[in-house]
Amino acid sequence: VPKVVDHERRREELADAALRLIARDGMRGVTTRAVAIESGWSTGVLSHYFGTLNDLLLAALRRAAEVQGRVFRERRSQSPEDPVEQLRLIVESMLPLDERRVALTRIFAVYYAELGVNHLAREEVVDYLDNFRRMVERIISRGQSDGAIPRGRDATELAVDLVALADGLSVHATIDPRILGRLQSEARPGERVVREVLGLSPHPA
Amino acid sequence: VPKVVDHERRREELADAALRLIARDGMRGVTTRAVAIESGWSTGVLSHYFGTLNDLLLAALRRAAEVQGRVFRERRSQSPEDPVEQLRLIVESMLPLDERRVALTRIFAVYYAELGVNHLAREEVVDYLDNFRRMVERIISRGQSDGAIPRGRDATELAVDLVALADGLSVHATIDPRILGRLQSEARPGERVVREVLGLSPHPA
Repeated sequence: VPKVVDHERRREELADAALRLIARDGMRGVTTRAVAIESGWSTGVLSHYFGTLNDLLLAALRRAAEVQGRVFRERRSQSPEDPVEQLRLIVESMLPLDERRVALTRIFAVYYAELGVNHLAREEVVDYLDNFRRMVERIISRGQSDGAIPRGRDATELAVDLVALADGLSVHATIDPRILGRLQSEARPGERVVREVLGLSPHPA
Repeated sequence: VPKVVDHERRREELADAALRLIARDGMRGVTTRAVAIESGWSTGVLSHYFGTLNDLLLAALRRAAEVQGRVFRERRSQSPEDPVEQLRLIVESMLPLDERRVALTRIFAVYYAELGVNHLAREEVVDYLDNFRRMVERIISRGQSDGAIPRGRDATELAVDLVALADGLSVHATIDPRILGRLQSEARPGERVVREVLGLSPHPA
């Protein structure tokens, strides 16, 4: 029987290879040749699936965001009630604490620099951050209603700031090993950040 | 008499032209031709002062940082005692609330994406952020000693977070007009951010 090529699977393999390279070597590491070697496929196969390196970058961005979303939903389902714990998981899903999240932070930075060639992808990055903010805002509003989170500050504003802080720390950690080291040395860096922004005491009562 | 060319002044003019273009049109706006037109000098003059576009970008980064430092020191000298006010000035000197700060945020993003060709410049960006953190940390420590800022959190940690939040907001504001609009609508966005991170009440008592 003829081999059935699972195109979706192959696209994922190539995107994953790009993510590994970005995490390991930075954005300059992503060349057609390097991705071909890393994935074990030829440059011909690569160009069949992705016309340009920019298409591959966009696929890698979507792949990382999709995996991030899945990991986050799995973890959230383990603590469905506690808003601080849910916010901690969101913040920690953004911090560059493993290869995938390092790569995601670096790809985002390309669009922050407005150098991602694909305008559509920049819109995706903007929407992606906005989805994070809305999810955070809902959790904060709920926590403020039931008394787990102090009232007195606007939930939208807190959500904007919490996502900005998580992302700012992520970006700083990818360019400065001392900042990454600080985050890695903490048991729950996301919890500290959440408690700080929400005005909760540093350590749970 | 022969004309005396003020080389330093001309380099500044060219760097300022690059900053205006970056603020107006984003990083893609910075081409040799566009900077020549914007500055009123020929591409020949431009290439005499800056061998590559990357050299010009680095000069623009230094120029923006230098102007930012000067503006900050002037403002700080007007409120030498109040730590919250000093921190507000630092945060607002980072936020992209005028052309120069928009350009600075965008140039930083290029180095965050690790796409700034000059490795030395990335080190400068890392040092620049670190200087901000140390300045913030000193002010927080002093405020904690004299009771203006709540104790109980590590000053270094607070400084890392405050600079990350200011920078995260800046980056988000340059790619998302809604975030920029929020910051522009506030009378003192830096004060809100400072009070939030330091655990001070939203409005001064």
